[in-house]
Amino acid sequence: MSFMVSHNLAISISSSSSTFLAPCSFNPRSQNVSLNAKRVGICKCVAAQEEVLTAYKTKVSRNANIAKLQAGYLFPEVARRRSAHLQKFPDAKVISLGIGDTTEPIPEVITSAMAKRSLALSTIEGYSGYGSEQGEKPLRRAIASALYKDIGLEEDEIFVSDGAKCDISRLQMMFGSNVTMAVQDPSYPAYVDSSVIMGQTGQYLKDAEKYGNIEYMRCSPENGFFPDLSSTSRTDIIFFCSPNNPTGATATREQLTQLVKFAKDNGSIIVYDSAYALYISDDKPRSIYEIPGAKEVAIETASFSKYAGFTGVRLGWTVVPKQLLFSDGFPVARDFNRIVCTSFNGASNISQAGALACLSPEGRKAMRDVIGFYKENSNIITETFETLGFKVYGGKNAPYVWVHFPGKSSWDVFAEILEKTHVVTTPGSGFGPGGEGFIRVSAFGHRENILEACRRFKQLYN
Amino acid sequence: MSFMVSHNLAISISSSSSTFLAPCSFNPRSQNVSLNAKRVGICKCVAAQEEVLTAYKTKVSRNANIAKLQAGYLFPEVARRRSAHLQKFPDAKVISLGIGDTTEPIPEVITSAMAKRSLALSTIEGYSGYGSEQGEKPLRRAIASALYKDIGLEEDEIFVSDGAKCDISRLQMMFGSNVTMAVQDPSYPAYVDSSVIMGQTGQYLKDAEKYGNIEYMRCSPENGFFPDLSSTSRTDIIFFCSPNNPTGATATREQLTQLVKFAKDNGSIIVYDSAYALYISDDKPRSIYEIPGAKEVAIETASFSKYAGFTGVRLGWTVVPKQLLFSDGFPVARDFNRIVCTSFNGASNISQAGALACLSPEGRKAMRDVIGFYKENSNIITETFETLGFKVYGGKNAPYVWVHFPGKSSWDVFAEILEKTHVVTTPGSGFGPGGEGFIRVSAFGHRENILEACRRFKQLYN
Repeated sequence: MSFMVSHNLAISISSSSSTFLAPCSFNPRSQNVSLNAKRVGICKCVAAQEEVLTAYKTKVSRNANIAKLQAGYLFPEVARRRSAHLQKFPDAKVISLGIGDTTEPIPEVITSAMAKRSLALSTIEGYSGYGSEQGEKPLRRAIASALYKDIGLEEDEIFVSDGAKCDISRLQMMFGSNVTMAVQDPSYPAYVDSSVIMGQTGQYLKDAEKYGNIEYMRCSPENGFFPDLSSTSRTDIIFFCSPNNPTGATATREQLTQLVKFAKDNGSIIVYDSAYALYISDDKPRSIYEIPGAKEVAIETASFSKYAGFTGVRLGWTVVPKQLLFSDGFPVARDFNRIVCTSFNGASNISQAGALACLSPEGRKAMRDVIGFYKENSNIITETFETLGFKVYGGKNAPYVWVHFPGKSSWDVFAEILEKTHVVTTPGSGFGPGGEGFIRVSAFGHRENILEACRRFKQLYN
Repeated sequence: MSFMVSHNLAISISSSSSTFLAPCSFNPRSQNVSLNAKRVGICKCVAAQEEVLTAYKTKVSRNANIAKLQAGYLFPEVARRRSAHLQKFPDAKVISLGIGDTTEPIPEVITSAMAKRSLALSTIEGYSGYGSEQGEKPLRRAIASALYKDIGLEEDEIFVSDGAKCDISRLQMMFGSNVTMAVQDPSYPAYVDSSVIMGQTGQYLKDAEKYGNIEYMRCSPENGFFPDLSSTSRTDIIFFCSPNNPTGATATREQLTQLVKFAKDNGSIIVYDSAYALYISDDKPRSIYEIPGAKEVAIETASFSKYAGFTGVRLGWTVVPKQLLFSDGFPVARDFNRIVCTSFNGASNISQAGALACLSPEGRKAMRDVIGFYKENSNIITETFETLGFKVYGGKNAPYVWVHFPGKSSWDVFAEILEKTHVVTTPGSGFGPGGEGFIRVSAFGHRENILEACRRFKQLYN
């Protein structure tokens, strides 16, 4: 008895969050389901489908752009598989090296500042209501002077936010639907997904595993993870992330000089994601603005998430230099400011107090310790896979290790690792077709979990 | 000597934040500027303009939708005039009853929970990284049970956010550019501005002071501040705010029943802004879902900003019922979830801890006290203007008092009040053409400032 399960049934069958929001997962052909259960299940499905056919529908069309998206956002998908695995192996000690989620406590110099600001909000002198949407002046000033000292940025070129992921969508809202964009392939999924949502792309092309109208710039071992710009078409916007998520590759000064020239020659705007800049330990550039001329072509976005464990606290910033102009001479910063004023009401004042503490001398030392800890994790993971004979990339200037499994499907490798070692990683193809054949192992974890995960990798692959 | 000052000059003339981001304000014809200064100013302007003509411009076109916006977002405009006034009268004791910014300290039961969560982030057991983009389960559960008990909402119909203003733009991003919308006139500017930015509207029509393709539903004393739905055209989306910002008007059960029927008959989706719901002291509905059938036609957005002084802390939520379906039967909540997962990374965990404390019995009592305080301010302001012979609206179930100045330009009245009493209010026309002839006085302020402002109003208008 074949049976078509449509997404509508998700409403009627289950009201638990993950099931409601996921494509319906009831499969009457599942081998683990008894015949009676199948019959009942199918009857329920049929009844449910009839319910849905009579359910009231508004006359508002779904946004066709969102309909283009192929599946859920990558990390909730990985999380769903992790949950399913835990249901199957409830006693397994699952170790999560999938989503790049920080695990180490936030240094006290930072949290005590946030506690202090929280309590101050209960006092007349210390209470503050709406802050500037662009961020509190002392913080903007501190970011400019602590992190861009030699570059010379002014405080009003810095827009404080609740994180780089949020800023990327606000930037996309600013750019609108009539721009073309280029991304590295593989890349952090938010660039492509936000582009699709904003209507900048065509349909998903199944064979290519790409969306139409996006220029995918392949980054692979063959080209040292820097795209061949001579064969890259012009686009309005170029997303570039270095140190790179997911490959961990870090662009050199020469490469970024090429990139800035490419943007300048084409009149493009680079959106430079520098969320992992402070993981760099050699002399590679930490900011795109170290390259002369970059202020005229680049926006830079950044975050405290991976420096200070602020993944849940939420604080980032975006730099829009005054020199960056649209084709008619209008300053990009003014339109970004308009978006920020209309769509946003500022980052939490408590999070901003935390960020300010991050930038004190004591805070910066504390962040260096946190970053150093994760980098040591990275080394351990890198050494493990290298010892096992794998070709390993990244890991040096980034908290991600990019492991090559030539000729294999990355979701299959992900599934096998999860099944046999109870370690969650991220399949490379989740970051684009250029990620196929790779697994991303993130270096965020308690040291004992990193060591245990590596022991299990050795068991599996020896 | 006439001289065209273009916006480009804002870059070269001044680098201070407010000037950079504002239309250029240098006016060579200003009577206060000496002839020499004029000459120098003009020479600087010419030189600057030449600089800009040679400045590098990218080839990226400005988003034509943003270019449709007429001026800065309303409240930064009001703030700018306040700053200018302070420069002119540096010793004036300016009282701000303009932007609805809370002033009273946050009750300790709430801030101590945030301080506790901050410090917990420094411990192994207490540390948390990325939270669910939809919000922490205990908070979603608490919102459902504390605030929607009789309505019966499930926790996964609640999406926690960093505030209603932010949610409005995320909703607009979800709806896309191919929907039509209706707003009350006057209304909170973020609905119209986000609609323009998303490309749902036509150009600004100067004579009408409206954007093309938006259905403006006039709300005035003549219709009891509830639109005449019989003469309202169908739109896909209907923004409705009650208690209303800026008029303070609160819809009755009968009116909302009409609204829900109107939406149902037209297949429209209501976006119901309930940010001031807890200011209601009579038996008017606090949630659109008190109306039968509303779950099939309405999204509701809400916030702790005006209940707990969270304007800077940032915590709100949006309800998307499971029963709300697009025309093809696809659940709206699934697309909203996709937007939330792509464009957002969750509200700050510390703010969420504060919100949870707000919903404890002690927290709810504390919020009632805060709200009661502002409502008393509202009474004082209402009585003052009524005593002075003005027709006054709102104020009863809302922290806004809507004062009628028939036949007058609201920006002129705003300017006169500011000039002569040093009190900042908000001109009604900033909320739409239906606001012309009205001034919004917000009730957020220390009691002594409210009393002092009212003394000054009495002086001016007696």
